[in-house]
Amino acid sequence: MESSCTVEILSIGNELLLGNTVNTNAAWLATKVTFLGGKVTRVTTVGDNLREISQATKESIKRRPDFLITTGGIGPTFDDMTLKAVAKAIGLRLRLDATAVRMVREHYARRFAGRRLLLTKPRLKMAYIPAGGTAIQNPVGTAPGVKLSVGKSEVFCLPGVPSEAKAIFTNTLSEIIAAKAGGMRFLQKWMRVDGVMESSLAPVLDRVMSRWPGVYIKSHPRGVEANGRAHLELHFSISTSEPKRAGRVLSAAIRDLMDELKRTRKKFTVTQ
Amino acid sequence: MESSCTVEILSIGNELLLGNTVNTNAAWLATKVTFLGGKVTRVTTVGDNLREISQATKESIKRRPDFLITTGGIGPTFDDMTLKAVAKAIGLRLRLDATAVRMVREHYARRFAGRRLLLTKPRLKMAYIPAGGTAIQNPVGTAPGVKLSVGKSEVFCLPGVPSEAKAIFTNTLSEIIAAKAGGMRFLQKWMRVDGVMESSLAPVLDRVMSRWPGVYIKSHPRGVEANGRAHLELHFSISTSEPKRAGRVLSAAIRDLMDELKRTRKKFTVTQ
Repeated sequence: MESSCTVEILSIGNELLLGNTVNTNAAWLATKVTFLGGKVTRVTTVGDNLREISQATKESIKRRPDFLITTGGIGPTFDDMTLKAVAKAIGLRLRLDATAVRMVREHYARRFAGRRLLLTKPRLKMAYIPAGGTAIQNPVGTAPGVKLSVGKSEVFCLPGVPSEAKAIFTNTLSEIIAAKAGGMRFLQKWMRVDGVMESSLAPVLDRVMSRWPGVYIKSHPRGVEANGRAHLELHFSISTSEPKRAGRVLSAAIRDLMDELKRTRKKFTVTQ
Repeated sequence: MESSCTVEILSIGNELLLGNTVNTNAAWLATKVTFLGGKVTRVTTVGDNLREISQATKESIKRRPDFLITTGGIGPTFDDMTLKAVAKAIGLRLRLDATAVRMVREHYARRFAGRRLLLTKPRLKMAYIPAGGTAIQNPVGTAPGVKLSVGKSEVFCLPGVPSEAKAIFTNTLSEIIAAKAGGMRFLQKWMRVDGVMESSLAPVLDRVMSRWPGVYIKSHPRGVEANGRAHLELHFSISTSEPKRAGRVLSAAIRDLMDELKRTRKKFTVTQ
């Protein structure tokens, strides 16, 4: 049973395309979405470029995911242009949002602690959001997040600073995604198999999966010792609305695989 | 001056969309491509799904990058389907490639070390490559890489196992990309500014950049201390065919920024 809640992630920032920054935001979001019962269907990374962000947003919306989560490009500098690009993609204008202005003002008021506060142009820039969008409180930073409805999809624009993206996701998105996933859960169990090559295991995985519908087994080669002994990591997973039953199914599939390995040992050329 | 060598990366694997694996392959490739003078314009991540991989390949080829590098999905298991999907995207058939068969056979011959070698179906699967493609030696694993020309683009399919992707890139792609980049180099210098908020620095960056054409300055917030003191990392970068001169330009831009900070100190509300 597949998750009924699809999510796309659009990661924005030159630092990601230069290799300066590893895209841990996408991995973190994917882990959370998966845990909440959603399914990440694509991650796209583009640079700080109006046309590229706008184009990637359009493409994503065409694929009609339930949620599009963008990270990055909503800060005060010239190259923070996500909201402008998303507005362009949807055919909206940016407008100064009263709630966002209040959020930005309150943030700087705390930072300036009584000294004279200037709502300069770069600061106010963070309060311009696409018309019809809603500003979302950023509990650990300045730039408010933004929520927008576009056709079937809800678009959420989060900051690129990991602590800020995580805080807004946890406070605001996680509940919405879990509700959309409607009680679906994704379960995983991992095991390690040593001394069997991935090519030898492939037909065994096929057989085990055919006996346990809904169970997906993915093998990850994790290196080979000097003596030629292969290390494989196997991930057993299932999407389910009945976690208890599904947990037992995963365990049974793992036992089944181990039995198969024992039975077919002679057919494997293993070094153990 | 922009790089004349554009590169897209297509990362393939459910583990990336589940958040089980952080996409370090993409960051590693991006670092290398950038160093060699190329420009990564987009990274796309999809799961082990024929339609998704094929669709993402089509979309990428339409954008006409000089290179499309895929990672993942070329191994022996049922869910390794990158070559089939790429072939489908381009309208080609998979065919058993004699060179690839030799590579796979030689790999297993070494692994089996004199014992009887079976070129089973999952093993031979890795030697089926899109018609017209060229198999590339995988110096540290089984599955050969694949090179294909599609219109203006060269498509390279690499394994997802990081050590294998890196080995093939280093042995085969790096030279090709450097040649295409034609002597362009990307230079970066980093500095840290404490006690100035990103929103206060934004107009300063604008002014400095206007005085040093070609220099790009990106600010990354790296947290705020309990006393409200902000930490910023600034990346100065430039693409150039004259690295020595460009290095001096970057240094000059950094000095210029420091002078600006000194001059405009009063306008900043800093906590230092």
